[in-house]
Amino acid sequence: MEEVKLLGFWPSPFVYRVIWALKLKGVEYDYIEEDVLSNKTELLLQYNPVYKKVPVLVHRGKPIVESCVILEYIEETWPENPLLPEDAHDKAVARFWMQFASRSPAFNAFFLLTTAGEEREKTIKEVLETLRTLEEQGLGDKKFFGGDSIGLIDIVHGWLASWFETIQEMVGVKLLEPNTLPRLHAWVQNFKDAPVIKDNLPDYNELLAHMTRLREMIVSKKFVIT
Amino acid sequence: MEEVKLLGFWPSPFVYRVIWALKLKGVEYDYIEEDVLSNKTELLLQYNPVYKKVPVLVHRGKPIVESCVILEYIEETWPENPLLPEDAHDKAVARFWMQFASRSPAFNAFFLLTTAGEEREKTIKEVLETLRTLEEQGLGDKKFFGGDSIGLIDIVHGWLASWFETIQEMVGVKLLEPNTLPRLHAWVQNFKDAPVIKDNLPDYNELLAHMTRLREMIVSKKFVIT
Repeated sequence: MEEVKLLGFWPSPFVYRVIWALKLKGVEYDYIEEDVLSNKTELLLQYNPVYKKVPVLVHRGKPIVESCVILEYIEETWPENPLLPEDAHDKAVARFWMQFASRSPAFNAFFLLTTAGEEREKTIKEVLETLRTLEEQGLGDKKFFGGDSIGLIDIVHGWLASWFETIQEMVGVKLLEPNTLPRLHAWVQNFKDAPVIKDNLPDYNELLAHMTRLREMIVSKKFVIT
Repeated sequence: MEEVKLLGFWPSPFVYRVIWALKLKGVEYDYIEEDVLSNKTELLLQYNPVYKKVPVLVHRGKPIVESCVILEYIEETWPENPLLPEDAHDKAVARFWMQFASRSPAFNAFFLLTTAGEEREKTIKEVLETLRTLEEQGLGDKKFFGGDSIGLIDIVHGWLASWFETIQEMVGVKLLEPNTLPRLHAWVQNFKDAPVIKDNLPDYNELLAHMTRLREMIVSKKFVIT
């Protein structure tokens, strides 16, 4: 009856948010791979008719969609090893930082960065400012965003580990470096080295190859980010 | 010690989300008007250094920002007259619909709709499709999104009442009508007629004048939506 299924797509950072949360909670689940770029299954369309996207968490036969909604559901359903603070105000602060930059158009623009032009400089500046705000006002001098252990803020921004690194390599611009963002850079290392996270990251080279292909599909308008 | 303050701006639909939730909960608060278009106070910058925006709820001296984060805080802090379902799955569904269309670029484009061109038709089609999804998959045949009484989904989409009406009048296109979206149109009426909401809506003509001025400022690049 406690059956938990996760519909995912291996290079999706949104799917990894859910994987990390389930693993940190020690929840057993069946993983079902969905090829969302070329072949969406009937199951996906049935479970997420509005967005037709992964991740979908299915618990006791009922689907939950949208990664941040799923994270809240996981926190509420399996309260062991809390990923949000208990105090209502601290929780609100955590939710603020979970939302922060979550749909920043600057990151999309950075992914599609061209080699020259005014837009290029503007995008780089915006990404750098966003990361600086996250470092200075969100992270501060803490090891993780909530203190000494990983919580939902870390999970939401966890894509800055492998995924952002592949983008930096692809576009040839390194912004998240020890000299520019020392505390956020240290956080990336702490995050990737943490138990559970370390064992649940995509292969860097496979991810780089996927991101490069995705970028080509978007540039040639064979795929649209929605 | 229970001191509750709200920093708002009278034409902001995001501020009204908080006003409605506080009033539905019966929470007493002091309202402080902030002129966010021309004169942001030190208090606002201190309470919301990241976005410098209203609404800001201040409870026991501590600020909470971002309207959906504030709504969750209110629900948790004052549990009487619940605005979210108790069941974890139902709550996840409610959060999904709270997020739905919350940052839809189509609504911004509709606000700035020009009188001719391909973009115009595309925008109208997108707004109509978004509203239709909200009606068919979110609202269905219910009086309010959660059933018979107002909850957080209604509050988040409450701007479709007065605000969307002023936009429709301004751009001269009526989309939310009894013949196109009968159930969503009936919901707008039910929402506006509900106790608490009815007594807490901006004056329609003052709102229309403000929205018209705001649109002119954006078109002439004197103000940027962020």
